[in-house]
Amino acid sequence: LAEAGKEVHFLLHSDYDFVAQHGLRVDSVRGDFHLKHPSIYKTTADMPLCDVVLVCLKTTHNELLKELLPPLIHKDTLVVLIQNGLGIESDLADTFPNLSIAGGLAFICSGKVGEGHIVHSDLGKISIGGYGFSSSPELEAVCADMVQSGIPADISPDLMLMRWRKLVWNIPFNGMTVVLNTTTDKLMSCPQTHELSYQLMLEVVAGANACGVALTVDFAQKMMAMTEKMTPYSPSMKLDFDYNRPLEIEYIYTRPLLEASRRGCDMPRISMLEKQLRFLTVR
Amino acid sequence: LAEAGKEVHFLLHSDYDFVAQHGLRVDSVRGDFHLKHPSIYKTTADMPLCDVVLVCLKTTHNELLKELLPPLIHKDTLVVLIQNGLGIESDLADTFPNLSIAGGLAFICSGKVGEGHIVHSDLGKISIGGYGFSSSPELEAVCADMVQSGIPADISPDLMLMRWRKLVWNIPFNGMTVVLNTTTDKLMSCPQTHELSYQLMLEVVAGANACGVALTVDFAQKMMAMTEKMTPYSPSMKLDFDYNRPLEIEYIYTRPLLEASRRGCDMPRISMLEKQLRFLTVR
Repeated sequence: LAEAGKEVHFLLHSDYDFVAQHGLRVDSVRGDFHLKHPSIYKTTADMPLCDVVLVCLKTTHNELLKELLPPLIHKDTLVVLIQNGLGIESDLADTFPNLSIAGGLAFICSGKVGEGHIVHSDLGKISIGGYGFSSSPELEAVCADMVQSGIPADISPDLMLMRWRKLVWNIPFNGMTVVLNTTTDKLMSCPQTHELSYQLMLEVVAGANACGVALTVDFAQKMMAMTEKMTPYSPSMKLDFDYNRPLEIEYIYTRPLLEASRRGCDMPRISMLEKQLRFLTVR
Repeated sequence: LAEAGKEVHFLLHSDYDFVAQHGLRVDSVRGDFHLKHPSIYKTTADMPLCDVVLVCLKTTHNELLKELLPPLIHKDTLVVLIQNGLGIESDLADTFPNLSIAGGLAFICSGKVGEGHIVHSDLGKISIGGYGFSSSPELEAVCADMVQSGIPADISPDLMLMRWRKLVWNIPFNGMTVVLNTTTDKLMSCPQTHELSYQLMLEVVAGANACGVALTVDFAQKMMAMTEKMTPYSPSMKLDFDYNRPLEIEYIYTRPLLEASRRGCDMPRISMLEKQLRFLTVR
């Protein structure tokens, strides 16, 4: 967005001093670029009011939002949570009852490889959807800005379906690569973990259906076929674990389990995986 | 048994030469002893016919029994399988349809710590039960020999109940200490794995009940309370894993799953644990 000339204000943390001096470098499969003087801040208190806030935090830090957001929001601000998991929007709405909230699902392989240095190695689509509304001028404008900036973006009319769809992949592979200390390709090439991955996906489908979301078994089969073709891959939770960062267990596992359980749907394998992950993080 | 003066013939493998020279040393909580010249053999072909054969192999080597046993057995020989898991006796009966078979469950903490050197650190009770019969003169004689030798032994009229009871502990703790690379005390002190251990036990109870075995939830609760009081412990499967030995997955996990599944009983958490163990052993 910034490279395309949109007005973007970045909140930085540990990289602030480096980026102030050297700018922000992005090595992308869509073309490398370098922002020499991005508009950066150490705290949201110093930032202007914003029409759109793109929240790209790990959900493990979402409790910071109640302090980060107030300096940024005016009455029409749209906050887009580009994060994985379930229940993120409802938690934010509990804190800010009048806020316009959207969710964003990023289908991208990218990561920070050094100070002020991001590598974008594959994919890049983003889907956004309103929380409690299917469309709004602000939501259309965000999507249009992204598309104009060369980002493949679309608006989904069903945010919850999008969130559950992404869980179909995230629930088996984030957790299993951590618990079994491995990569997706090895899980797929062992007949037992291949079957278990599919069983976990089917539990996600059952949970979604219990919550009134029209996810289908067909979609799980597509995710299996897609994963079979992937090169060896370490999901974000595996990287977080390897680098001793907190894991996004709450919104990827605990909340879906809770939502399904409230509707009488038991997901025993997902529940077991969640407990194994909880154990590994209290080490 | 040998220390008490009974006629015992030992089949040895890698320790044969050492024991031939130095004898067999047992450091036991019940009193240390040293057998200077035990009757040892490299192969069962050299051994005499035996009234009783105590099979103390890991079940991962049970396919050897079809060659090991024939030189030892006469028409009244009783073969006692002192091993963990389900389906061991029926597999042996498939190979030797006319053989008298019993199962033995050892409640003991002991292990080989060096060539010809065994440490027995705690407990020591053994329960034996006939396979397809509840009592016989041979079974009574084995039990009497053990008791006369100072081994706390008894005969159980219900071998399958005994086997399922032992699985109540073995299924959660053998597998979970391997998958999560830990010890029993750590699993018990984390609320999530504490709950998961109990859930796994309840699945064992359900599986046993489906198979017509009168195991109760009460027994699972007792096993939880017992494990809470145990000092940090690595079950035999964890030791096997750490020393790169094959794991007893087949008889401890796969067969109970199969037996329960045949009666329409699904054990999803146990099935998941079995798949995780299978994955870890194909590394």
